[in-house]
Amino acid sequence: MDISTKDGAGGKKMQSFLEDMVLSIFGNGTVGDVGLGELDDGASFGSYIISTDGHTVRPLFFRGGNIGKLASCGTYNDVSVMGARPLLLTCSFIIQAGFKRDDLCRIMHSMKDVANEVGAPIVAGDTKVVEDPIGMYISTTGVGSSWEGLTHNNNIISNTRTLHSQFITDAGLQPGDKIIVSGTIGDHGISLLAEREEIPLSGGLSSDVAPVWDIVRRALEEGGVTAMKDPTRGGLSGALNEMAHKSGAGILVEERSIPVQPQTLAAADILGINHLDVANEGKVVMGVIQEHADAVLAAIRSSPYGRNAAIIGEVTEEQRVFLRTAIGARRLLDMPDGDPVPRVC
Amino acid sequence: MDISTKDGAGGKKMQSFLEDMVLSIFGNGTVGDVGLGELDDGASFGSYIISTDGHTVRPLFFRGGNIGKLASCGTYNDVSVMGARPLLLTCSFIIQAGFKRDDLCRIMHSMKDVANEVGAPIVAGDTKVVEDPIGMYISTTGVGSSWEGLTHNNNIISNTRTLHSQFITDAGLQPGDKIIVSGTIGDHGISLLAEREEIPLSGGLSSDVAPVWDIVRRALEEGGVTAMKDPTRGGLSGALNEMAHKSGAGILVEERSIPVQPQTLAAADILGINHLDVANEGKVVMGVIQEHADAVLAAIRSSPYGRNAAIIGEVTEEQRVFLRTAIGARRLLDMPDGDPVPRVC
Repeated sequence: MDISTKDGAGGKKMQSFLEDMVLSIFGNGTVGDVGLGELDDGASFGSYIISTDGHTVRPLFFRGGNIGKLASCGTYNDVSVMGARPLLLTCSFIIQAGFKRDDLCRIMHSMKDVANEVGAPIVAGDTKVVEDPIGMYISTTGVGSSWEGLTHNNNIISNTRTLHSQFITDAGLQPGDKIIVSGTIGDHGISLLAEREEIPLSGGLSSDVAPVWDIVRRALEEGGVTAMKDPTRGGLSGALNEMAHKSGAGILVEERSIPVQPQTLAAADILGINHLDVANEGKVVMGVIQEHADAVLAAIRSSPYGRNAAIIGEVTEEQRVFLRTAIGARRLLDMPDGDPVPRVC
Repeated sequence: MDISTKDGAGGKKMQSFLEDMVLSIFGNGTVGDVGLGELDDGASFGSYIISTDGHTVRPLFFRGGNIGKLASCGTYNDVSVMGARPLLLTCSFIIQAGFKRDDLCRIMHSMKDVANEVGAPIVAGDTKVVEDPIGMYISTTGVGSSWEGLTHNNNIISNTRTLHSQFITDAGLQPGDKIIVSGTIGDHGISLLAEREEIPLSGGLSSDVAPVWDIVRRALEEGGVTAMKDPTRGGLSGALNEMAHKSGAGILVEERSIPVQPQTLAAADILGINHLDVANEGKVVMGVIQEHADAVLAAIRSSPYGRNAAIIGEVTEEQRVFLRTAIGARRLLDMPDGDPVPRVC
């Protein structure tokens, strides 16, 4: 079967693509604790994390950001949710001949702004110019370094529970851990699709694209974070299922606890898309040891990007992810087949 | 002025694109000795080098290799010519929907083969699938670590000349240094264009795409390497001009000493292209302290990839690169305006 868009769309199809193709050919390439076989947000070498993502979003400029801001945040965030402090970024531009120089300037300025905010400069890059009608793609790679705040706090907690000392993987959940999301869910994917479909919206729905390192740092300073992920392709549903599956556990989520903007919900309704299945680009979902959950929540809320953070559920022993709906029914929250919004990141 | 193919083609136009756009917006991003401002083959952090390249070559499968082999070698080589031992690779695939799974398998197997040969695994990656008619692009990022062989030997030599102790940059040439190339010049670019133009060739011209770490390692073991580069986009002319310019020196090259395959020269003649201006994907050009040049040359020739290595000239004080032709005339060997062969890497 030939390659289809779902092979790169963050859902079940991508999982089998990764297992049947990537891992079977590349093997579990590793030079540290976390390698390709973990299919985590990045890989480790020594006291560093490295992560790579290609960005093909359309339109290139969208409400709340552009491909440059997305390409920077996306990779800084993958490094951050491993518990590593972003250190540097590299970028590979592939640009269509005839691309407006002013547009490229705006895109690059956005990348530089994010780099300044995160405190991790762009140190290397490459530009290819092609005749193919692509507009522009940007692949970014980030390196982060093991953060002393994480090591310190997890060593303090380790008298009650063994935690990773250097990095945070997806696989650290244990039953009883609380699940926290750092803010409203679905904004990036729904906003992008609403813009493409020209759905008239009141209330200024826009992408949430932002760097999450500030949120992550505040959470790690409290200690007790057991697993962490940014719910991009595949959305919150995908991220929760991946974390549960890798941890050999289940999750029960309270639907009414999941933060969502009314305009996102309204647009999702019109579009017929579940806002839990679409990409977020400035959010974190994490497991936290129960006794630390309130403190971590308060820490996240003290970040400008984390004001709407909430505890949305907890880890169970059931090996599946369930949603308890507003009326008290329990339904399976499955991993989406693929992202319902194409070209979202 | 809008972006043109020459902005990414490795010549003068790309130099001004890099200076006017990239450096003026991103600044000299650096977290180590070598940063964006050096416009070298990679950047340093701690005892590591990182390098990124996008690959858009056409056709995807060509005589001597394919885009996967090229994307791996290209980045391992950029790390290698900084004097760093390749440690790991990451890859970002952007693939057209409908791409043949068998072709993707062949491409990925080629990448894995190179990774095995170099001893540096693929530890992280990303796949995006798009409807754009691109076939496939691959952006790769490599990390290499400071190599004890380099440090050791350069410390021994340092009683006569101060050499970089950790990495080799483009800028270390000094008048009197010998210039060595590791093999025949022009094979990749000329072969690729000959294949596209369907020029009938006897003698099996094919791309030289190969990892150069083995060559580099043998050269560094001898010590005395002062500057190093892989002559890809912009060819040997571009690489020599960059090294001379960054070193504040000049170079005089003997045309008849430059190794070239007769079939490459024949095809270049038919195509009307100077083989010194096109990309090589398995070659190294380096400056070597005069007293070490013969030993380094012998070391390179002992590598299977370096049998045709030659001393082709020496560093001068003139600030320009000159070619002494076979009949003894001296002509300026300028940096090409852009690569004469588009989509070559």
